[in-house]
Amino acid sequence: MTRNFRLTLMYDGTSFCGWQRQKQQTTVCGELERAISVITRQNVSVTGVSRTDAGVHAKSYTANVFLDTDTDAGILLKGINALLPEGIALCSIDLCDDNFNARFDVKNKTYIYKIDNSIYGNVFEKRYAWHYKFSLDISKMQQAAQYFVGTHDFSAFMAQGGTAKTFTRSIYTCFVTKEDDIIKIFIKGDGFLYNMVRIIAGTLVWVGKGSICAEQIPSIISSKERKNAGITAPAKGLTLYEMEY
Amino acid sequence: MTRNFRLTLMYDGTSFCGWQRQKQQTTVCGELERAISVITRQNVSVTGVSRTDAGVHAKSYTANVFLDTDTDAGILLKGINALLPEGIALCSIDLCDDNFNARFDVKNKTYIYKIDNSIYGNVFEKRYAWHYKFSLDISKMQQAAQYFVGTHDFSAFMAQGGTAKTFTRSIYTCFVTKEDDIIKIFIKGDGFLYNMVRIIAGTLVWVGKGSICAEQIPSIISSKERKNAGITAPAKGLTLYEMEY
Repeated sequence: MTRNFRLTLMYDGTSFCGWQRQKQQTTVCGELERAISVITRQNVSVTGVSRTDAGVHAKSYTANVFLDTDTDAGILLKGINALLPEGIALCSIDLCDDNFNARFDVKNKTYIYKIDNSIYGNVFEKRYAWHYKFSLDISKMQQAAQYFVGTHDFSAFMAQGGTAKTFTRSIYTCFVTKEDDIIKIFIKGDGFLYNMVRIIAGTLVWVGKGSICAEQIPSIISSKERKNAGITAPAKGLTLYEMEY
Repeated sequence: MTRNFRLTLMYDGTSFCGWQRQKQQTTVCGELERAISVITRQNVSVTGVSRTDAGVHAKSYTANVFLDTDTDAGILLKGINALLPEGIALCSIDLCDDNFNARFDVKNKTYIYKIDNSIYGNVFEKRYAWHYKFSLDISKMQQAAQYFVGTHDFSAFMAQGGTAKTFTRSIYTCFVTKEDDIIKIFIKGDGFLYNMVRIIAGTLVWVGKGSICAEQIPSIISSKERKNAGITAPAKGLTLYEMEY
Protein backbone atom coordinates (compact mmCIF):
# COMPACT_ATOMS: atom_id res chain seq x y z
CA MET A 1 0.00 0.00 0.00
CA THR A 2 1.35 3.37 -1.01
CA ARG A 3 1.60 5.91 1.78
CA ASN A 4 2.68 9.54 1.90
CA PHE A 5 5.87 10.43 3.82
CA ARG A 6 6.93 13.90 4.88
CA LEU A 7 10.69 14.52 4.75
CA THR A 8 12.90 17.26 6.15
CA LEU A 9 16.35 17.71 4.67
CA MET A 10 19.33 19.99 4.91
CA TYR A 11 21.86 20.50 2.17
CA ASP A 12 24.99 22.39 1.31
CA GLY A 13 24.22 23.49 -2.25
CA THR A 14 27.86 24.01 -3.27
CA SER A 15 28.21 20.73 -5.13
CA PHE A 16 24.71 20.45 -6.62
CA CYS A 17 22.99 21.86 -9.70
CA GLY A 18 20.05 22.97 -7.57
CA TRP A 19 17.07 21.03 -6.27
CA GLN A 20 15.20 19.99 -9.39
CA ARG A 21 16.09 16.64 -11.00
CA GLN A 22 17.89 16.93 -14.33
CA LYS A 23 19.33 14.37 -16.66
CA GLN A 24 23.15 14.38 -16.66
CA GLN A 25 23.38 16.73 -13.67
CA THR A 26 23.81 16.03 -9.96
CA THR A 27 20.88 17.61 -8.16
CA VAL A 28 19.57 17.33 -4.61
CA CYS A 29 16.23 15.86 -5.71
CA GLY A 30 17.96 13.44 -8.07
CA GLU A 31 20.34 12.19 -5.37
CA LEU A 32 17.51 11.87 -2.86
CA GLU A 33 15.30 9.92 -5.27
CA ARG A 34 18.21 7.63 -6.15
CA ALA A 35 18.86 6.88 -2.46
CA ILE A 36 15.18 6.26 -1.69
CA SER A 37 14.82 4.06 -4.79
CA VAL A 38 17.72 1.84 -3.72
CA ILE A 39 16.35 1.43 -0.18
CA THR A 40 12.71 0.85 -1.18
CA ARG A 41 13.35 -0.87 -4.53
CA GLN A 42 10.81 1.27 -6.37
CA ASN A 43 10.82 4.28 -8.63
CA VAL A 44 9.93 7.34 -6.62
CA SER A 45 9.13 10.96 -7.33
CA VAL A 46 9.86 13.46 -4.55
CA THR A 47 7.95 16.76 -4.31
CA GLY A 48 9.99 19.59 -2.78
CA VAL A 49 8.89 22.87 -1.23
CA SER A 50 10.99 24.98 -3.59
CA ARG A 51 13.18 24.68 -6.68
CA THR A 52 16.33 26.16 -5.22
CA ASP A 53 19.00 27.25 -7.71
CA ALA A 54 22.43 25.71 -8.16
CA GLY A 55 24.63 26.71 -5.22
CA VAL A 56 21.77 27.68 -2.90
CA HIS A 57 21.71 25.98 0.51
CA ALA A 58 18.90 24.73 2.73
CA LYS A 59 19.06 24.57 6.50
CA SER A 60 15.58 23.13 6.51
CA TYR A 61 13.73 21.82 3.45
CA THR A 62 10.41 20.02 3.41
CA ALA A 63 9.47 17.42 0.82
CA ASN A 64 7.03 14.54 0.46
CA VAL A 65 7.09 11.22 -1.32
CA PHE A 66 4.67 8.32 -1.81
CA LEU A 67 6.23 4.97 -0.93
CA ASP A 68 4.92 1.44 -0.99
CA THR A 69 6.75 0.22 2.09
CA ASP A 70 6.07 -0.95 5.60
CA THR A 71 9.68 -0.46 6.71
CA ASP A 72 9.99 1.45 9.98
CA ALA A 73 10.66 5.18 9.46
CA GLY A 74 13.75 5.05 11.72
CA ILE A 75 15.25 2.33 9.50
CA LEU A 76 14.39 4.29 6.34
CA LEU A 77 16.09 7.37 7.83
CA LYS A 78 19.34 5.52 8.51
CA GLY A 79 19.32 3.66 5.22
CA ILE A 80 18.63 6.72 3.07
CA ASN A 81 21.25 8.81 4.91
CA ALA A 82 23.80 6.07 4.38
CA LEU A 83 23.29 6.37 0.62
CA LEU A 84 23.11 10.16 0.30
CA PRO A 85 26.25 11.96 -0.89
CA GLU A 86 28.20 14.33 1.35
CA GLY A 87 26.34 17.61 1.50
CA ILE A 88 22.80 16.23 1.81
CA ALA A 89 21.26 14.93 5.04
CA LEU A 90 17.78 13.57 5.64
CA CYS A 91 16.79 14.94 9.06
CA SER A 92 13.42 13.24 9.45
CA ILE A 93 10.91 11.05 7.64
CA ASP A 94 7.39 10.60 8.98
CA LEU A 95 4.10 9.27 7.73
CA CYS A 96 1.72 12.11 6.88
CA ASP A 97 -1.74 12.69 5.46
CA ASP A 98 -2.16 11.54 1.85
CA ASN A 99 -3.30 15.05 0.97
CA PHE A 100 -0.09 16.70 2.16
CA ASN A 101 1.87 18.34 -0.66
CA ALA A 102 5.18 19.97 0.27
CA ARG A 103 5.05 22.40 -2.63
CA PHE A 104 1.44 23.57 -2.63
CA ASP A 105 0.63 23.48 1.08
CA VAL A 106 3.45 25.72 2.31
CA LYS A 107 2.16 28.90 3.99
CA ASN A 108 5.40 30.85 4.08
CA LYS A 109 9.15 30.46 3.60
CA THR A 110 12.05 32.29 5.22
CA TYR A 111 15.35 32.83 3.43
CA ILE A 112 18.57 34.28 4.79
CA TYR A 113 21.02 35.98 2.45
CA LYS A 114 24.53 36.32 3.93
CA ILE A 115 27.15 38.87 2.94
CA ASP A 116 30.71 38.70 4.26
CA ASN A 117 31.68 42.38 4.40
CA SER A 118 35.22 41.81 5.73
CA ILE A 119 38.15 42.96 3.65
CA TYR A 120 39.99 39.66 4.13
CA GLY A 121 37.23 37.09 3.56
CA ASN A 122 35.98 35.00 6.48
CA VAL A 123 37.33 31.48 5.89
CA PHE A 124 34.31 29.87 7.54
CA GLU A 125 31.81 31.69 5.29
CA LYS A 126 33.51 31.11 1.95
CA ARG A 127 30.84 28.66 0.78
CA TYR A 128 27.92 30.36 2.50
CA ALA A 129 28.27 34.12 1.99
CA TRP A 130 28.86 36.61 -0.81
CA HIS A 131 32.24 38.18 -0.08
CA TYR A 132 31.67 41.87 -0.75
CA LYS A 133 34.67 43.72 0.65
CA PHE A 134 33.76 47.33 -0.08
CA SER A 135 32.09 49.65 2.40
CA LEU A 136 28.33 49.24 2.94
CA ASP A 137 26.05 51.60 4.87
CA ILE A 138 24.11 49.12 6.95
CA SER A 139 21.58 51.66 8.25
CA LYS A 140 20.55 52.56 4.69
CA MET A 141 20.18 48.85 3.88
CA GLN A 142 18.01 48.44 6.98
CA GLN A 143 15.86 51.37 5.93
CA ALA A 144 15.50 50.05 2.37
CA ALA A 145 14.56 46.54 3.54
CA GLN A 146 11.34 47.79 5.12
CA TYR A 147 9.95 48.91 1.76
CA PHE A 148 9.78 45.31 0.54
CA VAL A 149 7.28 44.35 3.26
CA GLY A 150 3.72 44.15 1.98
CA THR A 151 1.82 42.75 -0.99
CA HIS A 152 3.30 43.93 -4.28
CA ASP A 153 3.76 42.96 -7.90
CA PHE A 154 7.44 42.00 -7.75
CA SER A 155 8.08 41.79 -11.52
CA ALA A 156 11.02 44.19 -11.12
CA PHE A 157 12.65 41.57 -8.87
CA MET A 158 12.21 38.56 -11.12
CA ALA A 159 14.71 36.98 -13.51
CA GLN A 160 13.76 35.61 -16.92
CA GLY A 161 13.12 31.89 -17.00
CA GLY A 162 10.68 31.38 -14.13
CA THR A 163 7.39 29.51 -14.44
CA ALA A 164 5.22 31.91 -12.41
CA LYS A 165 2.00 33.12 -14.01
CA THR A 166 1.19 35.72 -11.34
CA PHE A 167 3.69 38.21 -10.00
CA THR A 168 2.10 39.46 -6.80
CA ARG A 169 3.65 38.15 -3.61
CA SER A 170 3.34 39.06 0.07
CA ILE A 171 6.50 39.74 2.06
CA TYR A 172 5.82 39.49 5.80
CA THR A 173 9.22 40.47 7.17
CA CYS A 174 12.41 41.83 5.63
CA PHE A 175 15.25 43.07 7.82
CA VAL A 176 19.03 43.34 7.88
CA THR A 177 21.44 42.56 10.74
CA LYS A 178 25.21 42.92 11.09
CA GLU A 179 27.41 41.04 13.54
CA ASP A 180 31.16 41.40 13.22
CA ASP A 181 31.54 41.63 9.44
CA ILE A 182 28.65 39.33 8.56
CA ILE A 183 25.51 40.99 7.20
CA LYS A 184 22.33 38.90 7.11
CA ILE A 185 19.17 39.72 5.19
CA PHE A 186 16.14 37.87 6.57
CA ILE A 187 13.10 37.68 4.31
CA LYS A 188 9.85 35.83 4.92
CA GLY A 189 7.02 35.68 2.43
CA ASP A 190 4.19 33.58 1.03
CA GLY A 191 6.19 32.89 -2.12
CA PHE A 192 9.04 34.18 -4.24
CA LEU A 193 9.50 34.74 -7.96
CA TYR A 194 12.50 33.34 -9.85
CA ASN A 195 15.71 34.78 -8.27
CA MET A 196 13.60 37.25 -6.28
CA VAL A 197 15.53 36.97 -3.01
CA ARG A 198 18.89 37.24 -4.79
CA ILE A 199 17.75 40.35 -6.69
CA ILE A 200 16.43 41.93 -3.48
CA ALA A 201 19.81 41.13 -1.84
CA GLY A 202 21.70 42.64 -4.78
CA THR A 203 19.48 45.71 -4.65
CA LEU A 204 20.09 46.13 -0.91
CA VAL A 205 23.85 45.96 -1.55
CA TRP A 206 23.43 48.65 -4.23
CA VAL A 207 21.65 50.76 -1.57
CA GLY A 208 24.46 50.07 0.91
CA LYS A 209 27.15 51.23 -1.49
CA GLY A 210 25.15 54.34 -2.43
CA SER A 211 24.14 53.51 -6.03
CA ILE A 212 20.43 53.49 -5.13
CA CYS A 213 18.66 55.53 -2.41
CA ALA A 214 16.56 53.61 0.11
CA GLU A 215 13.61 55.85 -0.73
CA GLN A 216 13.73 54.72 -4.39
CA ILE A 217 12.67 51.15 -3.54
CA PRO A 218 8.88 51.80 -3.78
CA SER A 219 9.24 53.34 -7.24
CA ILE A 220 11.50 50.49 -8.38
CA ILE A 221 8.84 48.01 -7.24
CA SER A 222 6.02 49.93 -8.95
CA SER A 223 8.03 50.28 -12.19
CA LYS A 224 7.85 46.47 -12.64
CA GLU A 225 11.06 46.81 -14.68
CA ARG A 226 13.91 44.41 -13.88
CA LYS A 227 16.49 46.91 -15.14
CA ASN A 228 15.67 49.36 -12.32
CA ALA A 229 16.63 46.91 -9.56
CA GLY A 230 20.18 45.91 -8.53
CA ILE A 231 22.18 42.89 -9.59
CA THR A 232 21.33 39.28 -8.84
CA ALA A 233 23.47 38.44 -5.79
CA PRO A 234 25.53 35.22 -6.04
CA ALA A 235 23.70 31.97 -5.24
CA LYS A 236 26.12 30.79 -2.55
CA GLY A 237 24.98 33.51 -0.11
CA LEU A 238 21.40 32.23 -0.09
CA THR A 239 20.00 29.72 2.38
CA LEU A 240 16.42 28.51 2.62
CA TYR A 241 16.05 28.76 6.37
CA GLU A 242 12.59 27.64 7.44
CA MET A 243 9.02 27.19 6.26
CA GLU A 244 5.59 26.81 7.78
CA TYR A 245 2.59 24.71 6.74
CA MET B 1 64.59 49.40 10.78
CA THR B 2 62.95 46.30 12.15
CA ARG B 3 59.60 46.83 13.83
CA ASN B 4 57.20 44.48 15.61
CA PHE B 5 53.78 43.82 14.03
CA ARG B 6 50.81 42.25 15.74
CA LEU B 7 48.68 40.02 13.52
CA THR B 8 45.23 38.52 13.91
CA LEU B 9 44.29 35.56 11.74
CA MET B 10 41.50 33.11 11.22
CA TYR B 11 41.90 29.69 9.72
CA ASP B 12 39.99 26.57 8.79
CA GLY B 13 42.38 23.88 10.00
CA THR B 14 40.99 21.13 7.76
CA SER B 15 43.73 21.34 5.14
CA PHE B 16 46.70 22.12 7.38
CA CYS B 17 49.09 20.08 9.50
CA GLY B 18 48.53 22.40 12.44
CA TRP B 19 50.06 25.77 13.23
CA GLN B 20 53.75 25.04 13.74
CA ARG B 21 56.04 25.22 10.70
CA GLN B 22 57.36 21.85 9.54
CA LYS B 23 59.52 20.83 6.65
CA GLN B 24 57.56 18.98 3.94
CA GLN B 25 54.18 19.75 5.51
CA THR B 26 51.67 22.50 4.81
CA THR B 27 51.14 24.37 8.06
CA VAL B 28 49.42 27.65 8.90
CA CYS B 29 52.62 29.27 10.20
CA GLY B 30 54.59 28.02 7.21
CA GLU B 31 52.06 29.43 4.71
CA LEU B 32 51.88 32.73 6.57
CA GLU B 33 55.68 33.12 6.70
CA ARG B 34 55.92 32.27 3.01
CA ALA B 35 53.34 34.95 2.09
CA ILE B 36 54.97 37.59 4.31
CA SER B 37 58.42 36.73 2.93
CA VAL B 38 57.25 37.22 -0.65
CA ILE B 39 55.66 40.59 0.13
CA THR B 40 58.50 41.95 2.27
CA ARG B 41 61.41 40.19 0.51
CA GLN B 42 62.93 39.02 3.76
CA ASN B 43 63.06 35.86 5.81
CA VAL B 44 60.60 36.09 8.67
CA SER B 45 59.77 34.12 11.77
CA VAL B 46 56.21 34.41 13.09
CA THR B 47 55.42 33.80 16.78
CA GLY B 48 51.91 32.43 17.36
CA VAL B 49 49.79 32.34 20.50
CA SER B 50 49.38 28.57 20.42
CA ARG B 51 50.59 25.49 18.56
CA THR B 52 47.23 24.21 17.40
CA ASP B 53 47.09 20.60 16.20
CA ALA B 54 46.42 19.41 12.66
CA GLY B 55 42.72 19.90 11.90
CA VAL B 56 42.08 22.42 14.69
CA HIS B 57 40.50 25.73 13.61
CA ALA B 58 40.96 29.30 14.81
CA LYS B 59 38.29 31.96 14.67
CA SER B 60 40.76 34.42 16.16
CA TYR B 61 44.49 33.82 16.46
CA THR B 62 47.11 36.35 17.56
CA ALA B 63 50.69 36.32 16.32
CA ASN B 64 53.60 38.76 16.01
CA VAL B 65 56.44 39.19 13.57
CA PHE B 66 59.43 41.54 13.23
CA LEU B 67 59.62 43.15 9.79
CA ASP B 68 62.06 45.58 8.25
CA THR B 69 59.53 47.50 6.18
CA ASP B 70 57.95 50.91 5.95
CA THR B 71 55.09 49.67 3.76
CA ASP B 72 51.68 50.84 4.98
CA ALA B 73 49.90 48.20 7.10
CA GLY B 74 46.80 48.37 4.89
CA ILE B 75 48.90 47.47 1.84
CA LEU B 76 50.63 44.66 3.73
CA LEU B 77 47.21 43.28 4.73
CA LYS B 78 45.95 43.14 1.14
CA GLY B 79 49.23 41.80 -0.23
CA ILE B 80 49.59 39.03 2.33
CA ASN B 81 45.94 37.97 1.99
CA ALA B 82 46.35 37.79 -1.78
CA LEU B 83 49.14 35.23 -1.29
CA LEU B 84 47.61 33.14 1.48
CA PRO B 85 45.97 29.83 0.50
CA GLU B 86 42.24 29.24 0.83
CA GLY B 87 41.48 28.53 4.48
CA ILE B 88 43.75 31.18 6.02
CA ALA B 89 42.88 34.88 6.31
CA LEU B 90 44.89 37.71 7.83
CA CYS B 91 42.29 39.88 9.59
CA SER B 92 44.58 42.67 10.81
CA ILE B 93 48.21 43.75 11.00
CA ASP B 94 49.26 46.63 13.23
CA LEU B 95 52.48 48.05 14.60
CA CYS B 96 52.92 47.11 18.25
CA ASP B 97 55.39 47.50 21.08
CA ASP B 98 58.73 45.77 20.48
CA ASN B 99 58.24 43.87 23.73
CA PHE B 100 54.96 42.29 22.64
CA ASN B 101 55.17 38.52 22.32
CA ALA B 102 52.01 36.71 21.15
CA ARG B 103 52.97 33.47 22.87
CA PHE B 104 54.24 34.62 26.24
CA ASP B 105 52.05 37.66 26.87
CA VAL B 106 48.69 35.99 26.48
CA LYS B 107 46.60 36.14 29.68
CA ASN B 108 43.91 33.64 28.74
CA LYS B 109 42.54 31.69 25.79
CA THR B 110 39.02 30.46 25.06
CA TYR B 111 38.34 27.32 23.05
CA ILE B 112 35.02 25.97 21.81
CA TYR B 113 34.61 22.26 21.21
CA LYS B 114 31.62 21.42 18.99
CA ILE B 115 29.74 18.12 18.90
CA ASP B 116 27.07 17.41 16.29
CA ASN B 117 24.69 15.13 18.18
CA SER B 118 22.21 14.65 15.31
CA ILE B 119 21.65 11.15 13.98
CA TYR B 120 21.95 12.32 10.36
CA GLY B 121 25.03 14.59 10.51
CA ASN B 122 24.60 18.35 10.01
CA VAL B 123 26.03 19.09 6.55
CA PHE B 124 27.18 22.56 7.61
CA GLU B 125 29.17 21.25 10.60
CA LYS B 126 30.98 18.38 8.89
CA ARG B 127 34.36 20.12 9.04
CA TYR B 128 33.78 21.86 12.36
CA ALA B 129 32.16 19.39 14.73
CA TRP B 130 32.61 15.85 15.99
CA HIS B 131 29.61 13.90 14.71
CA TYR B 132 28.60 11.78 17.70
CA LYS B 133 25.19 10.34 16.91
CA PHE B 134 24.43 8.40 20.08
CA SER B 135 22.39 9.75 22.97
CA LEU B 136 24.13 12.16 25.36
CA ASP B 137 22.77 13.41 28.70
CA ILE B 138 23.47 17.10 28.38
CA SER B 139 22.62 17.93 32.01
CA LYS B 140 25.24 15.44 33.25
CA MET B 141 27.79 16.99 30.89
CA GLN B 142 26.91 20.44 32.23
CA GLN B 143 27.32 19.22 35.80
CA ALA B 144 30.67 17.58 35.03
CA ALA B 145 32.03 20.67 33.25
CA GLN B 146 31.93 22.70 36.45
CA TYR B 147 34.48 20.43 38.14
CA PHE B 148 37.18 21.52 35.69
CA VAL B 149 37.00 25.13 36.87
CA GLY B 150 39.84 26.08 39.23
CA THR B 151 43.59 25.63 39.51
CA HIS B 152 44.60 21.99 39.19
CA ASP B 153 47.39 19.71 38.08
CA PHE B 154 45.86 18.53 34.79
CA SER B 155 48.32 15.68 34.09
CA ALA B 156 45.37 13.30 33.68
CA PHE B 157 44.20 15.43 30.75
CA MET B 158 47.49 15.62 28.88
CA ALA B 159 48.69 13.55 25.93
CA GLN B 160 52.24 12.32 25.54
CA GLY B 161 54.46 14.50 23.38
CA GLY B 162 53.92 17.95 24.84
CA THR B 163 56.70 20.31 25.85
CA ALA B 164 55.22 21.54 29.14
CA LYS B 165 57.40 21.35 32.25
CA THR B 166 54.67 22.30 34.71
CA PHE B 167 51.23 20.72 34.73
CA THR B 168 49.17 23.12 36.82
CA ARG B 169 46.73 25.29 34.88
CA SER B 170 43.84 27.55 35.86
CA ILE B 171 40.48 27.07 34.16
CA TYR B 172 38.29 30.15 34.56
CA THR B 173 35.11 28.96 32.88
CA CYS B 174 33.92 25.63 31.53
CA PHE B 175 30.31 25.15 30.46
CA VAL B 176 28.22 23.22 27.97
CA THR B 177 25.33 24.46 25.78
CA LYS B 178 22.99 22.69 23.37
CA GLU B 179 21.04 24.32 20.56
CA ASP B 180 19.17 22.08 18.13
CA ASP B 181 21.56 19.13 17.91
CA ILE B 182 24.78 21.12 18.32
CA ILE B 183 26.54 20.81 21.67
CA LYS B 184 29.23 23.38 22.47
CA ILE B 185 31.82 23.13 25.23
CA PHE B 186 33.28 26.54 26.14
CA ILE B 187 36.53 26.52 28.08
CA LYS B 188 38.63 29.49 29.11
CA GLY B 189 41.93 29.20 30.94
CA ASP B 190 45.39 30.67 31.41
CA GLY B 191 46.94 27.82 29.44
CA PHE B 192 46.35 24.30 28.25
CA LEU B 193 48.49 21.16 28.21
CA TYR B 194 48.96 19.10 25.05
CA ASN B 195 45.52 17.91 23.82
CA MET B 196 43.98 19.05 27.11
CA VAL B 197 40.81 20.55 25.63
CA ARG B 198 40.23 17.55 23.41
CA ILE B 199 40.67 15.13 26.33
CA ILE B 200 38.28 17.22 28.45
CA ALA B 201 35.77 17.15 25.55
CA GLY B 202 36.18 13.38 25.18
CA THR B 203 35.72 12.94 28.93
CA LEU B 204 32.56 15.07 28.91
CA VAL B 205 31.17 12.89 26.11
CA TRP B 206 31.99 9.82 28.23
CA VAL B 207 29.98 11.44 31.04
CA GLY B 208 27.14 12.20 28.62
CA LYS B 209 26.90 8.60 27.47
CA GLY B 210 27.09 7.30 31.03
CA SER B 211 30.55 5.68 31.09
CA ILE B 212 31.82 8.12 33.73
CA CYS B 213 29.79 9.84 36.50
CA ALA B 214 29.99 13.61 36.70
CA GLU B 215 31.02 13.30 40.36
CA GLN B 216 34.10 11.26 39.36
CA ILE B 217 35.77 14.23 37.63
CA PRO B 218 37.56 15.56 40.77
CA SER B 219 39.08 12.15 41.50
CA ILE B 220 40.12 11.72 37.85
CA ILE B 221 41.88 15.10 38.04
CA SER B 222 43.59 14.26 41.33
CA SER B 223 44.70 10.83 40.06
CA LYS B 224 46.95 12.57 37.49
CA GLU B 225 46.60 9.41 35.40
CA ARG B 226 45.74 9.84 31.72
CA LYS B 227 44.10 6.39 31.60
CA ASN B 228 41.35 7.51 33.98
CA ALA B 229 40.08 10.26 31.67
CA GLY B 230 38.04 9.79 28.48
CA ILE B 231 39.22 9.63 24.89
CA THR B 232 40.87 12.45 22.98
CA ALA B 233 38.03 13.97 20.97
CA PRO B 234 38.72 14.48 17.22
CA ALA B 235 40.67 17.60 16.25
CA LYS B 236 38.11 18.95 13.79
CA GLY B 237 35.62 19.81 16.57
CA LEU B 238 38.07 22.21 18.22
CA THR B 239 38.23 25.94 17.51
CA LEU B 240 40.47 28.47 19.22
CA TYR B 241 37.88 31.17 19.76
CA GLU B 242 39.44 34.17 21.46
CA MET B 243 42.32 35.31 23.65
CA GLU B 244 43.17 38.24 25.89
CA TYR B 245 46.46 40.06 26.50
